[in-house]
Amino acid sequence: MSPAGARQPRNENGIYTHRRIVEATLDVLASRGWGHASVAEVAERAGVTRGAVQHHFKDRDGMLTAAVQHIMDQRISRIEALRHVGRAPGDHTRAIVRHAVEMHQGPAFTAALQLCMAAADDPVLRPRVAAMELEVGARGFWALIELLQLDGNDPKVRATVQAFLDSARGLGLAGILNDDADRRTHVADRWAEMLAELR
Amino acid sequence: MSPAGARQPRNENGIYTHRRIVEATLDVLASRGWGHASVAEVAERAGVTRGAVQHHFKDRDGMLTAAVQHIMDQRISRIEALRHVGRAPGDHTRAIVRHAVEMHQGPAFTAALQLCMAAADDPVLRPRVAAMELEVGARGFWALIELLQLDGNDPKVRATVQAFLDSARGLGLAGILNDDADRRTHVADRWAEMLAELR
Repeated sequence: MSPAGARQPRNENGIYTHRRIVEATLDVLASRGWGHASVAEVAERAGVTRGAVQHHFKDRDGMLTAAVQHIMDQRISRIEALRHVGRAPGDHTRAIVRHAVEMHQGPAFTAALQLCMAAADDPVLRPRVAAMELEVGARGFWALIELLQLDGNDPKVRATVQAFLDSARGLGLAGILNDDADRRTHVADRWAEMLAELR
Repeated sequence: MSPAGARQPRNENGIYTHRRIVEATLDVLASRGWGHASVAEVAERAGVTRGAVQHHFKDRDGMLTAAVQHIMDQRISRIEALRHVGRAPGDHTRAIVRHAVEMHQGPAFTAALQLCMAAADDPVLRPRVAAMELEVGARGFWALIELLQLDGNDPKVRATVQAFLDSARGLGLAGILNDDADRRTHVADRWAEMLAELR
């Protein structure tokens, strides 16, 4: 997803500046909301000129798209990391489930959530973030189907795995305000039982 | 939860102004974020003087507390409304579950979500909103235990009902950006099966 007019950097300095601007965009989002994520505000936060932002991303639209892409890449890497969860027999399902639940905690999840809330009212962000949510959701779904060796064509399996992913999202929300770690472990372990029953 | 110094209005005009200020506070939240929810900004939005806001709520703290209370009251009313869901045998569980899922959709849920996100960084709001989340969560949990005639002391039942409530919250999040109604019905109906198996 490279917006028309935005350039891919080709050297170390360019990659460094590109990354710094993306991180500044996410910083402005987290601290001041997307209404403030103008080219000028982000350039100031990144310590670069407005011209540098325009060189890399063309305009606000390109800059926001790159930030959405960055969050999506992070979330997809975390899903891919599920494949490296130990394959100890017996506790395998539990390890996968706990890991999938923890993927919906912490700063990366909070940033994705802030992005969703901001996108709800923003005509530029909304279709992009909605598409990101669908893609991340579908990838997480199929990674779980494969890792738990379930039948992804069985409607009962599909609805249960989706219920689990919604539950993990809901636990992410609960974890933002309250320290919810003990409850989360109980719920995750119950999910491991419910998902194991599908096999 | 009536903050020290805030007055309960005693006549029609007072009740009207009180309500108007609470609604203006929620409006400012939704459109501009809580960082902007100052007494001056809310007074302007409500079309009243700053003195009127101070008369009713003492200060920003009292005003925000009243807004949190208002959202909590709305959410608790929706939980109480679960008790009025038809008692047709057979589909009773499904009706309750669908209703509980729909409770986590729409403007009241979005407002609660915005409040959670804003509270994460706000020292005044955070403990209040965290307490609200725990109270609303506990009330929702016990209403479901009672309505579905489950054993609230059984750890398996407790973890499953909590997983369901987290799932409903996650479906609420998904519904903010994508029209998710079909998927939501499938997941809700699968939940009705999983919860019915607990009896």
